[in-house]
Amino acid sequence: MSRVFRWPVRVFYEDTDTAGIVYYANYLKFFERARTEWLRAAGVHQSELSQTSHRAFVVSHCVIDYHAPARLDNQLEISVVVENLGRASVSFQQQAWLEQADDQPRLLCTCHVRVGCVDTVSLRPAPLPAHVREQIRLHV
Amino acid sequence: MSRVFRWPVRVFYEDTDTAGIVYYANYLKFFERARTEWLRAAGVHQSELSQTSHRAFVVSHCVIDYHAPARLDNQLEISVVVENLGRASVSFQQQAWLEQADDQPRLLCTCHVRVGCVDTVSLRPAPLPAHVREQIRLHV
Amino acid sequence: MSRVFRWPVRVFYEDTDTAGIVYYANYLKFFERARTEWLRAAGVHQSELSQTSHRAFVVSHCVIDYHAPARLDNQLEISVVVENLGRASVSFQQQAWLEQADDQPRLLCTCHVRVGCVDTVSLRPAPLPAHVREQIRLHV
Amino acid sequence: MSRVFRWPVRVFYEDTDTAGIVYYANYLKFFERARTEWLRAAGVHQSELSQTSHRAFVVSHCVIDYHAPARLDNQLEISVVVENLGRASVSFQQQAWLEQADDQPRLLCTCHVRVGCVDTVSLRPAPLPAHVREQIRLHV
Repeated sequence: MSRVFRWPVRVFYEDTDTAGIVYYANYLKFFERARTEWLRAAGVHQSELSQTSHRAFVVSHCVIDYHAPARLDNQLEISVVVENLGRASVSFQQQAWLEQADDQPRLLCTCHVRVGCVDTVSLRPAPLPAHVREQIRLHV
Repeated sequence: MSRVFRWPVRVFYEDTDTAGIVYYANYLKFFERARTEWLRAAGVHQSELSQTSHRAFVVSHCVIDYHAPARLDNQLEISVVVENLGRASVSFQQQAWLEQADDQPRLLCTCHVRVGCVDTVSLRPAPLPAHVREQIRLHV
Repeated sequence: MSRVFRWPVRVFYEDTDTAGIVYYANYLKFFERARTEWLRAAGVHQSELSQTSHRAFVVSHCVIDYHAPARLDNQLEISVVVENLGRASVSFQQQAWLEQADDQPRLLCTCHVRVGCVDTVSLRPAPLPAHVREQIRLHV
Repeated sequence: MSRVFRWPVRVFYEDTDTAGIVYYANYLKFFERARTEWLRAAGVHQSELSQTSHRAFVVSHCVIDYHAPARLDNQLEISVVVENLGRASVSFQQQAWLEQADDQPRLLCTCHVRVGCVDTVSLRPAPLPAHVREQIRLHV
C-alpha cells in the first residue's frame, strides 16, 4: 500500500440535493468509506475490531474546506493520508478529487479528521489494540 | 389519541435530490419517524424496549405508491393508521400529505408497511411483550 | 450485458442503524445505484438525459420484502432484471444478496419497482426518448 | 428573535449507526435544519431565494468538534449564532445539546460553519440580495 490510499466514489442521486450538487454532509460519508477501505487494506475489519477487541473508531474533530461542487454521475477519487498515529487516535488528511475525461483531476474538498479509538460499551477513549496499531503502522 | 395519528415533517435540503424533489427512499424515513412518534404517544420508547425487553421492530414488507413529488421547504403531514395488530407484528397504512396555503392537502405518497417484532440478539421474530401489545391496543 | 445485471455494494457505517443492521430505507439507495449502473452499461447517463432530453426517471411504485438483515462490512450484490419496458416506464425486479465466504449467497431483500419517465420541468409522465428506449431494449 | 436561535431535533433510527450513536455526518444535517429554520424565522425561504433571486447558500468551510455521543430517542437542541455577516457569506457558531430530564443540557457537538452565497446557475460567489442581507441583519 502506498503512502496515499485512493478510493473511487461515484455520485448517485442519493448524494445530490436540489441545488444540483452533492450535499455537504455526504462528503463525510465518502471520507469514511475511504478510511474504512484503507483500514481493510491494512488488514483491519471494523466489525471484527468491535466484536473481538470491543473497540470502535469515532470521529472527534473535523476541518473541512469545500472548494468546488460535484454533480450527478461524477466520478470522484477520495484520498487518505495518515498525518499522525497516536496511542488512542489517528489523524488523517483526506481529499475528494473530480476525475475529468480531458483534464487533470480537480480538487473539490479537503478534510482534516481525527479519529479516536473508544471502548464499544463505555464509548470512552481507549488505546488501540497493539496488533491493530502495528498493522496500521506498517501501512502508513 | 385519535384513530389517525399525524406527524409534521418539513422538507430540508438533505431530503431533496438533483431532480428538485424529495428522494424516493427518504419517504421511508418520514414514515418511520411518524411510526416512532405514534409509538411514543402510546407510551412505548424503542430505546427502552430494546434495553429492557430485548425487542426491536424491523420492517418486513412495504408497498409504496408515489403520486406526486415534494420539494424544498414543503410542509408535509405524515399519517399513521394501524391496519392489523398481530402477535409478533403490526401492519400500518401511512400517507404523506402536502400542506397547501390556499388549498386542501394533496396526497403525495401512500405506504402499506408490516413491522415485525424481533429479538435484538437473534433478530428472529418474537412476540410483542404483553404490556407493549396492550399499550398499542389501547391506542389503535 | 446478460439478462441479469449485478452491482456490488459494500455496507459501511452510514448504512447501518443502532439495531446493528442496514436501515430499511437504504436498500432503496442500493437498488437505485444498481439501476443507474445498469443504465450506464446500456449507454444511458442520467445527467445527460436530463440536460439534453429534459427527461428524468422517477420511481412511481415499489413492493419490497425484507428477508434477512445485512450488517457492517457485509459485501452485497444487487441484481437488476427488467420485467417490462413500456412507452413511458420501466419495471424491474431487484434483489440484494449477501456474499458469504463459505456458502452460497443469501437472499436479503427483493424489490419490484416501476420507474416512470417524466419531463424534468413539469415532472409529468413523458415518453422515453426513442434512442434511449432502443438502447434499453437492446440490453434487456 | 433572540441572539441565540434554537431548534429541536429528535434522534430517530435513521440518524444512528451500528455503534449505537448518531453517525457523525448527520450532525451536519441537524445544523443545516437549524440554519434553515433560523433563516425562515428571519423571513427568508430558500426555495423562494432560489427561484426569485437565483441565489443559494453553499457551505464553504466547517470546523466540527464532537464532545459526546447522542443515541436513539434523545431529544437535542441545536443552536445558531451568527458570528459574522459578510457581503457574500455568513459565519455561524452552532452547537448540539442533549436535553436531560434530571440534569442540565449536555454539550455534544460544536461547529463553526461559513456559508457562501452563490449564483444558482454558475455556482460562483455572489453578493447577498440587499433585502435578504437586511432581513438577516435585523435578526442577528
